[in-house]
Amino acid sequence: MQVRAAVAVGAGKPLEVTTVNLEGPRAFEVLVEVKATGICHTDEFTLSGADPEGLFPAILGHEGAGVVVEVGKGVTTLKPGDHVIPLYTPECRTCEYCLNPKTNLCQAIRSTQGQGLMPDGSSRFSTLDGDPILHYMGTSTFANYTVVPEIALAKINPDAPFDKVCYIGCGVTTGIGAVINTAKVEIGSRAIVFGLGGIGLNVIQGLRLAGADQIVGVDLNPAKKEMAERFGMTDFVNPSEVEEDLVPYLVNLTKGGADYTFDATGNVNVMRTALESAHKGWGESIIIGVAPAGAEIATRPFQLVTGRVWKGTAFGGARGRTDVPQIVDWYMDGKIEIDPMITHTMPLEDINKGFDLMHKGESIRSVVLY
Amino acid sequence: MQVRAAVAVGAGKPLEVTTVNLEGPRAFEVLVEVKATGICHTDEFTLSGADPEGLFPAILGHEGAGVVVEVGKGVTTLKPGDHVIPLYTPECRTCEYCLNPKTNLCQAIRSTQGQGLMPDGSSRFSTLDGDPILHYMGTSTFANYTVVPEIALAKINPDAPFDKVCYIGCGVTTGIGAVINTAKVEIGSRAIVFGLGGIGLNVIQGLRLAGADQIVGVDLNPAKKEMAERFGMTDFVNPSEVEEDLVPYLVNLTKGGADYTFDATGNVNVMRTALESAHKGWGESIIIGVAPAGAEIATRPFQLVTGRVWKGTAFGGARGRTDVPQIVDWYMDGKIEIDPMITHTMPLEDINKGFDLMHKGESIRSVVLY
Ligand SMILES: [Zn+2]
Ligand SMILES: [Zn+2]
Ligand SMILES: [Zn+2]
Ligand SMILES: [Zn+2]
Repeated sequence: MQVRAAVAVGAGKPLEVTTVNLEGPRAFEVLVEVKATGICHTDEFTLSGADPEGLFPAILGHEGAGVVVEVGKGVTTLKPGDHVIPLYTPECRTCEYCLNPKTNLCQAIRSTQGQGLMPDGSSRFSTLDGDPILHYMGTSTFANYTVVPEIALAKINPDAPFDKVCYIGCGVTTGIGAVINTAKVEIGSRAIVFGLGGIGLNVIQGLRLAGADQIVGVDLNPAKKEMAERFGMTDFVNPSEVEEDLVPYLVNLTKGGADYTFDATGNVNVMRTALESAHKGWGESIIIGVAPAGAEIATRPFQLVTGRVWKGTAFGGARGRTDVPQIVDWYMDGKIEIDPMITHTMPLEDINKGFDLMHKGESIRSVVLY
Repeated sequence: MQVRAAVAVGAGKPLEVTTVNLEGPRAFEVLVEVKATGICHTDEFTLSGADPEGLFPAILGHEGAGVVVEVGKGVTTLKPGDHVIPLYTPECRTCEYCLNPKTNLCQAIRSTQGQGLMPDGSSRFSTLDGDPILHYMGTSTFANYTVVPEIALAKINPDAPFDKVCYIGCGVTTGIGAVINTAKVEIGSRAIVFGLGGIGLNVIQGLRLAGADQIVGVDLNPAKKEMAERFGMTDFVNPSEVEEDLVPYLVNLTKGGADYTFDATGNVNVMRTALESAHKGWGESIIIGVAPAGAEIATRPFQLVTGRVWKGTAFGGARGRTDVPQIVDWYMDGKIEIDPMITHTMPLEDINKGFDLMHKGESIRSVVLY
């Protein structure tokens, strides 16, 4: 079939919105009509050429929501009409990782996914001339139809609005999951969140949901304060306005250090500050942000020997098929908010404008509506 | 009373074995007749002058075992005749740290202990001329009698031999506790231990006790192999004999990386290797060794984002009054071994020989018998 897609033709070039061929689903694959997709820094990271593993031409996009149109042979858990969110971290429920309760990093299709291919080693997308176009993160939601492995689709509440819950396919789950799955924050905890972009806001609402008593937000941009307060931030710290060193300031503010700190900046110096602002004896620091290639974190080992724990999280430690439907339900029940974070919407034709808004820091999240 | 003690008179100088004054126990303090004490790298660290917080003159020693002689006012948990192990990490059972199940770092007397003083801010030791001599780590076991706070004494099985269980006051608990309390190693785990000195051997026997399936020991000295195997090591790796990079070699040896890795070297480069040899998704690396002042650990944050956890441990995460008696019982029941690690014994007069043996790497542990 012919579908409309925004094709990443090369590093640093704008997406080209065009018509491409999409082959139907093979065994254990599913054809999804994408109804909405967010535009994320991860797409930008690849499109810019900064991602050393980026491949072109490809159809980017990994924050989608849509409807199953057709299922391939062997698909048993989905049927046409089901509402789904594609998962860049699949959940096969049979690999060594899925069977270990300590991780969500399903490895079932990792190698082909990293190569921009479906699990059988081929692509379903091609140009009208027949040249293959690669998939991206196993999802390729910058097309109005896409083919996704069955194990990479979460079946969700059919009443959920696509234009909001698409964000659960990435930032919402990453932020809330970092709190709930990775840190396992307890009621009454004190926490610090570094970076009040979309991920940071979702960490904040995760902390509110988990019953944290103090939720400190740290950002150089004072314009972030209002929205962060809306999501549950109790204290705002602008490092440029702190006259002493930031670590002792934050330790003092949190009565000895935070029980949990979260880096949502991707800056390795901030990651160090986050670790060292955690409470002696038991504070845990969770790295969420993606650092530039080659950047390294550092600290004195004394920080760990005196009880701090340094962790990271990917997709919020969530097992997508299990946890994403739950987060959708939390949204539908009003336990979490998404609407204020979807600051812009646009048709696919205007997708490059969404990237521009992100560059300028004007959007929290832009969503393409098909 | 007059007691015999080895006094650290200054950085880099040999201990001076002499007679000093010891005042009796004040409120909440206990007079202990020390029967045996180990000689540890931590004593050497301070004696050498490398410890930036080292103070002189002081009576070092922190791996003792002995008998209660007299108790001060208010002491309710100990009486004369009780057998005890002094604890450099006390357990008051009432401070914020003791009440948090995630840590063992009781802070009740931390600041005076760090200054070489009893909790009331004074010293019980003095020269025969009346000049004060400082305590060390709250224990000062390089004297045949010492005064220790009640909260820093573990009451142990009176049948336990002092010349062996004194080592439970430091290395045994540190190594076994790192496995049991900090890492919480599960049956069937794969583990790597870097550094096969006394701490490393105790990590190894902790892993055996915890039911680990694979226990890899890493050391540049092939002479360490035999003893480590005796304590449960299943695979020995000499990095100087590995032709490829050590991390991929160890990852391959442990079928994807170890579930738990332990640094018992204090070398920050080894700490990085230990982290990166841990299994993607769930591997935890525990820093036990003490690094030189100012040294920093580093890694790419990707190591943590893909599921590795970086931790440290002090005194094996043990709460001394609760856990040390248990470890003594394990020794008495034959669950753990200590005897082969006590390679040398000597009278107090020869204590400097014990330091020489440690420098030369000829001892695992030298013990002074009073
Ligand atoms: Zn994203
Ligand atoms: Zn899996
Ligand atoms: Zn020691
Ligand atoms: Zn305490």
